[in-house]
Amino acid sequence: MVLDFSARLREVQADKQSRLCVGLDPDPQRLPPALLDAQPLADAVIAFNAAIIEATAPLACAFKLNLAFYEALAAEGWRALEATIRHIPEDVLVLADGKRGDIGNSARFYAEALFDTLDVDACTVAPYMGRDAVAPFLTYEGKAAFVLARTSNPGAADFQEHISDGDPLYVHVARRVAEWDDEEVGTAGLVVGATDLDGLRQLRATCPTLPFLIPGVGAQGGDPEPVVAAAATDDGLVLVNSSRSILYASSGPDYAEAAAREADRLRTQLQGGSA
Amino acid sequence: MVLDFSARLREVQADKQSRLCVGLDPDPQRLPPALLDAQPLADAVIAFNAAIIEATAPLACAFKLNLAFYEALAAEGWRALEATIRHIPEDVLVLADGKRGDIGNSARFYAEALFDTLDVDACTVAPYMGRDAVAPFLTYEGKAAFVLARTSNPGAADFQEHISDGDPLYVHVARRVAEWDDEEVGTAGLVVGATDLDGLRQLRATCPTLPFLIPGVGAQGGDPEPVVAAAATDDGLVLVNSSRSILYASSGPDYAEAAAREADRLRTQLQGGSA
Repeated sequence: MVLDFSARLREVQADKQSRLCVGLDPDPQRLPPALLDAQPLADAVIAFNAAIIEATAPLACAFKLNLAFYEALAAEGWRALEATIRHIPEDVLVLADGKRGDIGNSARFYAEALFDTLDVDACTVAPYMGRDAVAPFLTYEGKAAFVLARTSNPGAADFQEHISDGDPLYVHVARRVAEWDDEEVGTAGLVVGATDLDGLRQLRATCPTLPFLIPGVGAQGGDPEPVVAAAATDDGLVLVNSSRSILYASSGPDYAEAAAREADRLRTQLQGGSA
Repeated sequence: MVLDFSARLREVQADKQSRLCVGLDPDPQRLPPALLDAQPLADAVIAFNAAIIEATAPLACAFKLNLAFYEALAAEGWRALEATIRHIPEDVLVLADGKRGDIGNSARFYAEALFDTLDVDACTVAPYMGRDAVAPFLTYEGKAAFVLARTSNPGAADFQEHISDGDPLYVHVARRVAEWDDEEVGTAGLVVGATDLDGLRQLRATCPTLPFLIPGVGAQGGDPEPVVAAAATDDGLVLVNSSRSILYASSGPDYAEAAAREADRLRTQLQGGSA
């Protein structure tokens, strides 16, 4: 029997005492110069990620890889992606953050790339094209697809706040995602930005049991404690992602230790402790 | 001086007398068995695409590569993507159909992958995350980003038809895309499905000069003539895509000739002739 994604996430979060997801988004311009000088770029990315993983895995319930940073390296990027995933210990979940969304026939191939070829535990998906663009990601037992609801960027207001039938678009999206979660074998979750606490509260009230992936803490300005207070409940798990504030905590040779310090600070704050 | 994407498209369409975009979406289960037996999958994909390109390039103004089909092959898929693009003659435009959409910092990397590394002429982008998710694709002179407005799949109705301030979401998206086109150096266009003629007319009235990429003719059920009548004007160019009806016109050894026949039939219909 395959364990449901939410059940696995609950176990990992309890074992690690962590809601922290570390985002592995390697920007070549911000990698430690010593790594870049020594080898080709893809190898520098692999070495950087491996050091960050080793330093922060004990503190994280998940790693999230934003595919944009790997795709920019073309075929070499896929090699770096696969090598990075191999470095992640068994007891930490792996999320592929690609925000894919296409007609059913194409979405099946994206799902295959992520869940069969890369064998990650969860991914992110865009909702604009509706049910048949998301459903292929929800046909994998034990896996999860987090659907964009309320994002953390400035452009989030452009369409996500459009009101129809009394509710903003992101609430309509959340309601449909909850239905799809019921209808399919995989777990559906929501991506909800840390930068809008009212949106977090509203979406948790709308979807009491869906897991939330929450980006926007750290470099994007969201604070950890109020985010957890707004969205984490006994039934409603949250995964709080930080990428840049951990990866680039130091640009010197101590980058991995600095990343671990920042990850531990954030982990503690997310558990309701002070740091 | 770099020629604007719309100006290039107009030239190519006039030279070739074609509004046809051929979709190179190689589904391993539908490739000719003889190709699959002879070599590794990625090489079969490259050989299949090369034969389709050679047969249909004289009839097409563009080729569109849906990235899902390549991503499913991981690093080998990127090799197939790059090799396929090298096979496309200079006088045909190349579109990368990935429907990417992420916060500005990540979107920059997706844009780099498509416009610098692969050096395609245009791409598709998802609008859900708003302006800063699209703008990085519009910073390349001579290139274009087609933003999803009204898609051709069943799920299109789930959110795109939500009415706010009297208009459906896809009309709001189209209006904003027209603004972004004015504000940035690249060309913005719209993706509008062939399966909704009223939507096509409404969007052409909303955006008289944006180029439209129109999928959904052929396997998805849209008819060519009414699509052109609804959306093609002197100022408003249309690119009509067909993938499966051309690629899989025959599963026998005559697949390339059959693809050329089907492409020519469609090209003629799209020029307002009978076939």
